[in-house]
Amino acid sequence: MGQTLTEKILDDHLVEGDLEPGEEIGIEIDQVLTQDTTGTMVWLQFEALELDEVQTELAAQYCDHQTYQFDFKNTDDHRFLRSAAGTYGAYFSRPGNGICHNVHKENFAAPGKTMLGSDSHTPTPGGLGELAIGAGGLDVAVAMGGGPYFVEMPEVVNVRLEGELPEWATAKDLILEMLRRLSVKGGVGKVFEYTGPGVESLSVPERTTITNMGTELGATTSIFPTDERTKDYLERQGRGEEYVELSPDEDATYADEIVVDLSELEPLISAPSMPDNVVPVREVAGEDVEQVIVGSCTNGGYADILPAAKMVSGREIQKDLEMIVAPGSKQAGELLAREGWTAEMMAAGVNVSESTCGPCIGIGHVPASDSVSLRTFNRNFEGRSGIEDDSVYLCSPQVAAAAALKGEIVDPRDLAEELGDLESPGVELPDRYDGSKADIIEPDEAVDDDLIKGPNIGDVPLKDPLGADIAGETLLKMPDNITTDHIIPATSDILKFRSNIDKLSEFTLSRVDDTFAERARESDGGVLVAGENYGQGSSREHAAMCPMYLGIEAVLAQSFARIHKANLYNFGLLPLTIDEETYERIDQGDHVEVVDDVAEAVASGAEEFTIRVNDDWEATAEFDASEREREILAAGGKLTLTKQQYEEDSGGATPADD
Amino acid sequence: MGQTLTEKILDDHLVEGDLEPGEEIGIEIDQVLTQDTTGTMVWLQFEALELDEVQTELAAQYCDHQTYQFDFKNTDDHRFLRSAAGTYGAYFSRPGNGICHNVHKENFAAPGKTMLGSDSHTPTPGGLGELAIGAGGLDVAVAMGGGPYFVEMPEVVNVRLEGELPEWATAKDLILEMLRRLSVKGGVGKVFEYTGPGVESLSVPERTTITNMGTELGATTSIFPTDERTKDYLERQGRGEEYVELSPDEDATYADEIVVDLSELEPLISAPSMPDNVVPVREVAGEDVEQVIVGSCTNGGYADILPAAKMVSGREIQKDLEMIVAPGSKQAGELLAREGWTAEMMAAGVNVSESTCGPCIGIGHVPASDSVSLRTFNRNFEGRSGIEDDSVYLCSPQVAAAAALKGEIVDPRDLAEELGDLESPGVELPDRYDGSKADIIEPDEAVDDDLIKGPNIGDVPLKDPLGADIAGETLLKMPDNITTDHIIPATSDILKFRSNIDKLSEFTLSRVDDTFAERARESDGGVLVAGENYGQGSSREHAAMCPMYLGIEAVLAQSFARIHKANLYNFGLLPLTIDEETYERIDQGDHVEVVDDVAEAVASGAEEFTIRVNDDWEATAEFDASEREREILAAGGKLTLTKQQYEEDSGGATPADD
Repeated sequence: MGQTLTEKILDDHLVEGDLEPGEEIGIEIDQVLTQDTTGTMVWLQFEALELDEVQTELAAQYCDHQTYQFDFKNTDDHRFLRSAAGTYGAYFSRPGNGICHNVHKENFAAPGKTMLGSDSHTPTPGGLGELAIGAGGLDVAVAMGGGPYFVEMPEVVNVRLEGELPEWATAKDLILEMLRRLSVKGGVGKVFEYTGPGVESLSVPERTTITNMGTELGATTSIFPTDERTKDYLERQGRGEEYVELSPDEDATYADEIVVDLSELEPLISAPSMPDNVVPVREVAGEDVEQVIVGSCTNGGYADILPAAKMVSGREIQKDLEMIVAPGSKQAGELLAREGWTAEMMAAGVNVSESTCGPCIGIGHVPASDSVSLRTFNRNFEGRSGIEDDSVYLCSPQVAAAAALKGEIVDPRDLAEELGDLESPGVELPDRYDGSKADIIEPDEAVDDDLIKGPNIGDVPLKDPLGADIAGETLLKMPDNITTDHIIPATSDILKFRSNIDKLSEFTLSRVDDTFAERARESDGGVLVAGENYGQGSSREHAAMCPMYLGIEAVLAQSFARIHKANLYNFGLLPLTIDEETYERIDQGDHVEVVDDVAEAVASGAEEFTIRVNDDWEATAEFDASEREREILAAGGKLTLTKQQYEEDSGGATPADD
Repeated sequence: MGQTLTEKILDDHLVEGDLEPGEEIGIEIDQVLTQDTTGTMVWLQFEALELDEVQTELAAQYCDHQTYQFDFKNTDDHRFLRSAAGTYGAYFSRPGNGICHNVHKENFAAPGKTMLGSDSHTPTPGGLGELAIGAGGLDVAVAMGGGPYFVEMPEVVNVRLEGELPEWATAKDLILEMLRRLSVKGGVGKVFEYTGPGVESLSVPERTTITNMGTELGATTSIFPTDERTKDYLERQGRGEEYVELSPDEDATYADEIVVDLSELEPLISAPSMPDNVVPVREVAGEDVEQVIVGSCTNGGYADILPAAKMVSGREIQKDLEMIVAPGSKQAGELLAREGWTAEMMAAGVNVSESTCGPCIGIGHVPASDSVSLRTFNRNFEGRSGIEDDSVYLCSPQVAAAAALKGEIVDPRDLAEELGDLESPGVELPDRYDGSKADIIEPDEAVDDDLIKGPNIGDVPLKDPLGADIAGETLLKMPDNITTDHIIPATSDILKFRSNIDKLSEFTLSRVDDTFAERARESDGGVLVAGENYGQGSSREHAAMCPMYLGIEAVLAQSFARIHKANLYNFGLLPLTIDEETYERIDQGDHVEVVDDVAEAVASGAEEFTIRVNDDWEATAEFDASEREREILAAGGKLTLTKQQYEEDSGGATPADD
C-alpha cells in the first residue's frame, strides 16, 4: 500500500511505535527551532539536563517576539539566548533579524527533514516539504539532547487543490477557507497534506502561508510536496543543493479528503475574535478601520509585503488610520529596501517597523480602544492584540492595503473598480533572494562559551513525584476555546518575566480572572475546569508550568489542544477529560477529589478516574495517556524523568559525559 | 548700541518688559510645538480654558515618544492628539513620522520666528535662526491661546567659532566640548549665540545638533545666524521663500564670550551618567560595548545617519553587540531607504527601527543589565535608558559606528588606521531633501472635529488658591541634579499614564524612593528638599503636577532648573531657594513650617521667607518670583488664573467666544 508524504518522512525517522493513527510514535528530530519567549526555558532545561552539546543536525535560536526590548529583562534574555546558543552549539539569530519561521524558512528549512520547534507555528516549513511540528519547550530541549519526539500518530488528510487563484485571491484566502470549513478544532490529531494540480500554481511563500496558518486548524502539521518551485526557491536562497523531490505515492491512502477549487476563492476575512470566524470581505465592507498591520510569520515575507507595497505606491493611505509594516525577516526588509519599496511605502504614509512578531502578541502597536485593526496575522483571539475587547480582523496583505487606502474594510476588487488604476499586484521573486547573513551567528563563530544570566533569569521549577491523592477546590471554571494567551498573556508587561516563573505565575489566567493567582497561592492545591479545546494557540509551556508552580494538580476539560496537553504532562499535571454533563454540573468553588489512588492508577494503566464533587456526587473522567506520558506524570514531570533516565542509561553519568 | 541676534528677535516679539537680563519679559509666540508625552495635558488644558482655536501662526502636534504603542493608552493618546489638532486647528504629525524637533526643523522652522514647545529640546531650530524655547505644557497651551510667554530675560553669551572641524570631529563634539567646559548648569539663565568665522563651515543639520543639545547646558536656548547654508537648506526642503538673513549687529554686546577653535576638536564622549561627564574617546577606548544606537533629535537626521551608514556599508558589525538605527524622521528614513543606505545598513547587521524617540527615554531597546550602551543621544541620566545602574555613553554617529565595528569603544581615527580603508565620511545633502508629507495632516484637511478620549484620558487636576499656611514633613531629601526623569520616569510602564494623573502620580519620585508616593498620599501635605539644579532635563510638567496632586506644597532647593521652576509656579507649588547650610541641616522626616503668612507674603512681594524646622531652628529661604508668578501662585496655578483672566477680560466670555 502506498504511503502519504507524511508517512514517508515519519517512516524515515521512526524510532518507536507504528504509523497507526492514534498510536504514540517516537521520531528522530533533524532540526530544532526555538524563539525568545519559549527559548529561555528550553535552554535552562537543557542546562538542567546537564547536556553539553546540541545533538540534532541543526538547532537555531531566534529572537523575534520581544525585539522592541521594552525592558532590560528582554535584552538580558536575548543575551542569555546568544550565550546558550554559543555554549551548546546552536545557530543564533540576532534580534531584528526576523521572525523564527521566516528566517528558518529562508536559511535552514529543507525537504524531507523533521523539525521540532517551541512555537506553535513551527509547521511553516511544511511549504518546502519539511515535516515540522510545534511542541512545548521541554520536548524541544530533550530532542536537542538527542531524544526522540513522541507524538500521537495523526490522521493524514488529503487537501486536494484544483484550479488556480483568481486575481485578488491569495494563499491567505485558501487557509481562511479551510478555517471557515473546518473551524479551529477541525485539524486536531491531523496532518493536512496538500496535493493536486493546484499545488504547482502556488509559490513557496504562498505554500508557507498555508502551512503556517494550518496551526489555527489545530493540526499537528501541514505539508506540501516538493517540485520545481521548491527547487527554484531554494536556489534563489543559495541552497539549491538541499532540494529533494518528495511526493506521496500515487496509491497513498488518506484518512479523509478535502477538495478546494482555488479558482472559486475570493478575498476572505476572519472577523473578531477567532480565526475561524471567516466571511467574504464584502460581507463586512464599510467597517471603519483605525489600524492596518502587514507582517507576521504568516504574511511577512518579501512576497507578502510586495503586493501591499505596490498597492500603496504613488498613493497615500487615509489620514485617519495608521498602517504599520513589519517585515517578517531582515532578508525581506533588506530586499524591499534595496528595490525601493520601503521608500515608496514610507512616502505613502506607512510606518515601516523593524522585523518582529511584536504586535501579533500585543507587544507594540496595540490598537486604540474601541477600534478596528486589520492585520495579516494568524490569530485574533480576544485580547491578544494587547487590549481587552479588541476588534481584530485577519486578512491578506491585499485586503489590508485596500483598507488602508479606503479607510474602511473593502473588497480589493471593489476598490480596483472604484479607483480604475489599481491592479491585482503580481509577485516575481528577485534573482538575488538571499540577503545578508550578518545577523546569524553560526556555531563555529560563537562569541560566548558560557551562559550569561541577568538577574531576572531564574531556575526551572520542579514538581514532586505524583502522589496518591489529588483533591482541591475548583479554582476556576472556564468556557470553551481558552487559549494559552488566556493562561499566560504575551503582552509586554507580562511576558518579560518569561524567565522568572515565580514572578510570571502571578499573571496566570489573569485574563480570565485576575484574582486567580492569588487564590491559587493561598489554597492548598486545586484544579481547573474548562470546556472544549483547552490550551489552544501558542505552544508556550509557561501555560502549564505556571499553574503547576501555583499548586494546580489537575485540569478537567472537555478536550485539550495537542501541544498544551503534552505540556501538562511534561510539568506533572493530570489532564482529565470530562463529558459535557459533568462540565455543566461542576461549579467554580466546588471541591473535586480524585477517588482513585492517582499514582497507582496512572502506573497501572487506568483509563478512567472517578471524581467526587463536594462529597456529593461522582462522575467518570477519561485519561488516555500513553505509557510514556504515565511515566512522566509519575516522576513529577519530564525534566525529572529525563534526568533519571540519563543517569540510568549511563550508570550515573549523563550522555554529555560520555 | 548694537543688538545681539537674540535681542533682535525678542525685540520684534516683545509684549511686556525690557530686555534686561534677569527681568521678566513677555513675548509673542509665532509657533508652538507639542509632542505625545506632554501634548495630551496641553490639549486638555487648552480645552479647560474653553478656547476654540489655535491663535498662533502655527501649532504642530507630533507623536514621537511612544510610537511603539506598547499599550492601548498610547494609541488612544495618539488618536486624542489627532482629534485635538483637528478640532483646534493644529498640524498633526502621525506616529512614525518622526521626532518633533526633526520634523519641525524639516517642515516649519523659520528664521526670525519665535517658538514655544512643550519639550526641553525645543531649541533645535535655533540652528536655522529661530528663537525656540522649551516650556511646560500649560505655558504652551496659554501661548496657543494667544497669550504671551513670560521668561526671565537671559544673558546672551557669544560662542565664537573659529577654524573648521578636522576629519572625524563633528558638531556633536563641539557641543560635548561646551558641556565639558561649562557643565550641565553652565547655561542656566543664558542664551548661547554662535558667531564667528567657523559658523559658515557648519551645515544646518550640524548647527541643529548643537542647538538641540544646548539644552543639556541648562540654557534657555541657543541660536545661529542665518546665511547661504540656511538658505540652501530651506531650498532643499522646498521652503526657500522662508529664508530671512539674520545676524547680530557688529557692535552687539554680549554678557560673555566663549571661543571654540573647531580645528582643535577631537572625538569626544560623554561617560556615564551625566552629559557633562565628557572625555576624549581615546581615554575610554577598549571598553566593551553591547549596544549601539544611532538616532534621536540630536543625531537622527539624514546627515547624521549617513556617516554611520557609510562606515558600516560593506562591513559587518560585531556579532556580540546590537546596533539599532532609528531615523529621527520619516524624511530621513525615506531618503536613506531611497538611496540604498537602509539596505546596506541592514546587510551590515543593523536593526533599522521606526522613527521614534523611544530608546532615548527608556521606551524600547533598553540595555541589558551590567552592560555598556553607546548612543548618539543627548542625555545619559542614570536610569533614563530604562534600567537602573545603566552605563550609557553619548557620542557622535561616527564614534558609535566605530564601536559597532570594533565591539568596544574606539576613537574612529584609531580604527581608521587599524582598518586601512575607513575614511572620514563626508555628507552631501541630496537635492531632493523634502520627502513625503503623507504623515502630516494639515489643519484644513483635519479628519476630526471633536475630541476623542479613550478611557485612560482623565482631567487636569486643579489646586486650591494659596492659603496662609504651608507646613509639613520633609517627605524626601534629594541630592544635586535631580532630573524630571527622576521625578516622573519616562519608561513605557509609567509614561503610558501621562493622561491620567491619578494613576501617574503613584510613580512620583519612585526612582529616588519608591515609598514616596504612598507616604505623600498618607501625609497631610509635605515638602520636598533638594540640592542644586533641581528639575533639570525634560520639560514634562507632570513633574510638578504629580507632586501637587499628592499634596506637596513647597519645594526647597539650592537651585532650580528653569522650565521645572516655571512648572512649579504653574501648578501652585512654592519654590524656595535655600543655601547650602540649610540644605545640609534639614533631614528627611524633619517638620518644616513656613513661618510667614504665605498668601499674604506672596501677594506683598516678599523675597524671603522664614522656615522653622522641627520647631527648633529657623532659616531664611529666598523667593524670587515675578509679579506674574506671584499671581499664579495665589490663584492656585496658572490654569485657574488664566481662566479667571479670560473671564475678566471678556466680561464673562472667553476669548474664543469673541
